[in-house]
Amino acid sequence: MSAMYTLRDLAERVGGTVRGDDSVSVCGVADLTLAEAGQVSWVTNPKYAAKLAESRAVAVLVPADFGETPMPAILCERVDRSVARLFKAFAPETCCPASGRHPSAVIDESAIVAPDAAIGPHVVIEAGASVGAGSALHAGVYVGRDAHIGEHCQLWPNVVVRERCTIGDRVEIHPNAVLGADGFGFYFDEGRHHKVPHIGGVKVEDDVEIGAGTCIDRAKVGFTRIGCGTKIDNLVHLAHNVQIGEHCMILAGVLVGGSTRIGNRAIIGGQVGIVDNITIGDGARCASGMTYVINDVPAGKTVSGIPAHDHREELRRVASSRKLPAMAETLKDLVTRVKRLEASTHNQS
Amino acid sequence: MSAMYTLRDLAERVGGTVRGDDSVSVCGVADLTLAEAGQVSWVTNPKYAAKLAESRAVAVLVPADFGETPMPAILCERVDRSVARLFKAFAPETCCPASGRHPSAVIDESAIVAPDAAIGPHVVIEAGASVGAGSALHAGVYVGRDAHIGEHCQLWPNVVVRERCTIGDRVEIHPNAVLGADGFGFYFDEGRHHKVPHIGGVKVEDDVEIGAGTCIDRAKVGFTRIGCGTKIDNLVHLAHNVQIGEHCMILAGVLVGGSTRIGNRAIIGGQVGIVDNITIGDGARCASGMTYVINDVPAGKTVSGIPAHDHREELRRVASSRKLPAMAETLKDLVTRVKRLEASTHNQS
Amino acid sequence: MSAMYTLRDLAERVGGTVRGDDSVSVCGVADLTLAEAGQVSWVTNPKYAAKLAESRAVAVLVPADFGETPMPAILCERVDRSVARLFKAFAPETCCPASGRHPSAVIDESAIVAPDAAIGPHVVIEAGASVGAGSALHAGVYVGRDAHIGEHCQLWPNVVVRERCTIGDRVEIHPNAVLGADGFGFYFDEGRHHKVPHIGGVKVEDDVEIGAGTCIDRAKVGFTRIGCGTKIDNLVHLAHNVQIGEHCMILAGVLVGGSTRIGNRAIIGGQVGIVDNITIGDGARCASGMTYVINDVPAGKTVSGIPAHDHREELRRVASSRKLPAMAETLKDLVTRVKRLEASTHNQS
Repeated sequence: MSAMYTLRDLAERVGGTVRGDDSVSVCGVADLTLAEAGQVSWVTNPKYAAKLAESRAVAVLVPADFGETPMPAILCERVDRSVARLFKAFAPETCCPASGRHPSAVIDESAIVAPDAAIGPHVVIEAGASVGAGSALHAGVYVGRDAHIGEHCQLWPNVVVRERCTIGDRVEIHPNAVLGADGFGFYFDEGRHHKVPHIGGVKVEDDVEIGAGTCIDRAKVGFTRIGCGTKIDNLVHLAHNVQIGEHCMILAGVLVGGSTRIGNRAIIGGQVGIVDNITIGDGARCASGMTYVINDVPAGKTVSGIPAHDHREELRRVASSRKLPAMAETLKDLVTRVKRLEASTHNQS
Repeated sequence: MSAMYTLRDLAERVGGTVRGDDSVSVCGVADLTLAEAGQVSWVTNPKYAAKLAESRAVAVLVPADFGETPMPAILCERVDRSVARLFKAFAPETCCPASGRHPSAVIDESAIVAPDAAIGPHVVIEAGASVGAGSALHAGVYVGRDAHIGEHCQLWPNVVVRERCTIGDRVEIHPNAVLGADGFGFYFDEGRHHKVPHIGGVKVEDDVEIGAGTCIDRAKVGFTRIGCGTKIDNLVHLAHNVQIGEHCMILAGVLVGGSTRIGNRAIIGGQVGIVDNITIGDGARCASGMTYVINDVPAGKTVSGIPAHDHREELRRVASSRKLPAMAETLKDLVTRVKRLEASTHNQS
Repeated sequence: MSAMYTLRDLAERVGGTVRGDDSVSVCGVADLTLAEAGQVSWVTNPKYAAKLAESRAVAVLVPADFGETPMPAILCERVDRSVARLFKAFAPETCCPASGRHPSAVIDESAIVAPDAAIGPHVVIEAGASVGAGSALHAGVYVGRDAHIGEHCQLWPNVVVRERCTIGDRVEIHPNAVLGADGFGFYFDEGRHHKVPHIGGVKVEDDVEIGAGTCIDRAKVGFTRIGCGTKIDNLVHLAHNVQIGEHCMILAGVLVGGSTRIGNRAIIGGQVGIVDNITIGDGARCASGMTYVINDVPAGKTVSGIPAHDHREELRRVASSRKLPAMAETLKDLVTRVKRLEASTHNQS
């Protein structure tokens, strides 16, 4: 993080306009409360404005319509995008194995590895596999027989890509993720479970990111598919034959059952469970936190709850649910009062 | 997948009877909608019958009582079993390391490894460990001191089996699973947590399958046990001293607390949580999806809910719960009306 | 487990007082029901007292105020502490790689590794990294560039510690855990997700334990922090910039969203989900099992439920919830009766 910029240069890099002295030097980036002399910070939400007064940041990135700031500011039309570029401006070089093949890597002679690919220590590449130009396979990565890794991919340490799986270009897979393990398929006969062979694979399209410890099972036949640009967080389980569209977000701890189809640009919140063999439409959202989806979700709809239904209805249900003990009291009281009214009415008749 | 059969031969392999021309050639297997010329497909459920008309499949496996099909069919008494055999008929050879020891494997000289076992690259086998005949340890597998792997096992890449754990015969363990990590046991004293040593192990019986990323902790003393024929999915956590019976199914994302006992042929659905120190009876079922089990479950019973109770009662509770906002309205209305009635009755008295 | 003690010696080791014959020989430890001749066992709860009669244990550890036992006993003031010491007394030696560097390890020449550290087979230590005195890196461990491992740490097989992460002293990390993967941060622009660079790291303080398969993401900037003495179970996900205090317990399957702060001595139960950007106070507890925390939790408070609120209120809500179908019936009945009353009152007026 030894990069150094004038505020003017930095504004240009992040896509913003300086308000105040644009000649100050910036030598790093930090949270508002942790920033030290020379470091730039950022505020995305006006509710944190009060913290600005105590911050030692030399400058701050803020939304274009943000109020006064005690230090020079870079006004940003899209502050999220500018902050990402700010981090990039101070990012250390990505740690990669050296180009070429580490002598401890075990690469089958029939594998095709681009000359400029970076193959780290203890990597294994089996027969018939391929690794595209500019890709980095960090220490301990395993690429199975006839598996294909595209160009400019990052496979972090101990990632396992089993046989006949296909990874597109610019795919990043975090440590200890597993692609292509057998799905969980058995039939019960003569008192025991018998395995259903899984002869399909996993197809990961371009620009996908897959989190640490995530497991994507291979298809029974055909492919489990992760569409272009989809991002998957840590410790996610995608069962055999799951089909995920393009530009989705699948947050940490999600479990998706076999053969379920998720459309494009869907957002599946953290810890959500989705049963097998259903369809989640384009742009649908499953709210984070113990949402359990057992029915199709139409395009554009947001669901939550156990089982999942319309999110607004669920919010009302939760609100009512909190009043349940009081409702039970009221109900008991009413029963008594109605009984009394009935007795009194009866007496009068 | 270069196998080729006549439909007659294939019917014999999968255990069914041909209806229609049994001489057609079959060169592969695919989903109904994806099948291309020469490929066979299958239908297990009559509701998909409509898709048959559009399919290019050359033949189709169906249940014995299935109606007309536009292409020749193999009628199957047990279509799930026949489909599994169908996949097997077209399965490529299992990708395994070559028999013998890869030169990069590190094997203690006191370890006993069957001559025909296949020990892949970068495998580590510690002192006193053993590996049985016909077993395959794929790249990066770790077998700890005095651990024992039976015959005809498949340990996929980067599986960790720690010291003094025992694996039976024909066990399959998927990538990055961990057997024998210390359980989570501490006592609090003088302001900090102190570790309880875990001096037991894990005992996995014959014909077990363990999913990718699954963690089975070692016992404090004695063994954490996985019974014969039990199948465990991905990303499951089994705590110290858990005892699981024979022929169970433990689906993805399940967490089982310490010392809990699960009987034979139980089915624990996806994402279910089970507390420590309880007993789940033979053939019991915990329904998939956010079921949280805090009490013993009798043999044969199905439970769901948070906390789990009788599954049918839970379904009724969920149905009522959805009407809660309406109930709250009705209740509020009733209170007003009863108050009015009381006032009117009071006036009359 | 070949250690052998007299009961007198053992009592001294575990911190207790012998009642009965203190000269008997003890050669092992086992559960009450599994103990064989010569083995010692323990009972922490009087409800298991009945099992003592059938046990073959030669002696038993019990709380100081425990009643009569059919065999000699060690009376313990703190039986949990004494049992932990009992296990330690019979614990086999920890399995560790030999001191020094295994020839298959790949260690950058700029890395600083203590001479007595034990570096196992296929370990990778990148440039600028360091490993402190007495630490053991088991087979396949990866230590990224400029990462620092303190003294007397245990990193079990296939643990990944990525670049610029810092691990304190006496830290134990179980197999296949991942520290320092990129957090899940993207901004959406021009129809696709763009990655937010994660230029921070992970800081793990002294005496922390981290479970198998657990993933702790690196910070966007600054550090994701795990405080001194905190213990984390298996398959936990801690997102970027999470701040966890000292001496906490984080049980299996917990997910914590980005930038959330957890105080000291908090207990987060199994399978709990916590959203991003909230604060959990010192000594707070989130009850195990599908608790989903979306609001700050004050110090010392216990919460549960979806979403989480006061634990006692949640218990009442659950109890009421179980009566919901009956309440719905009662309500329906009341509506009819009030209608009848209204009609009758109306007639009278």
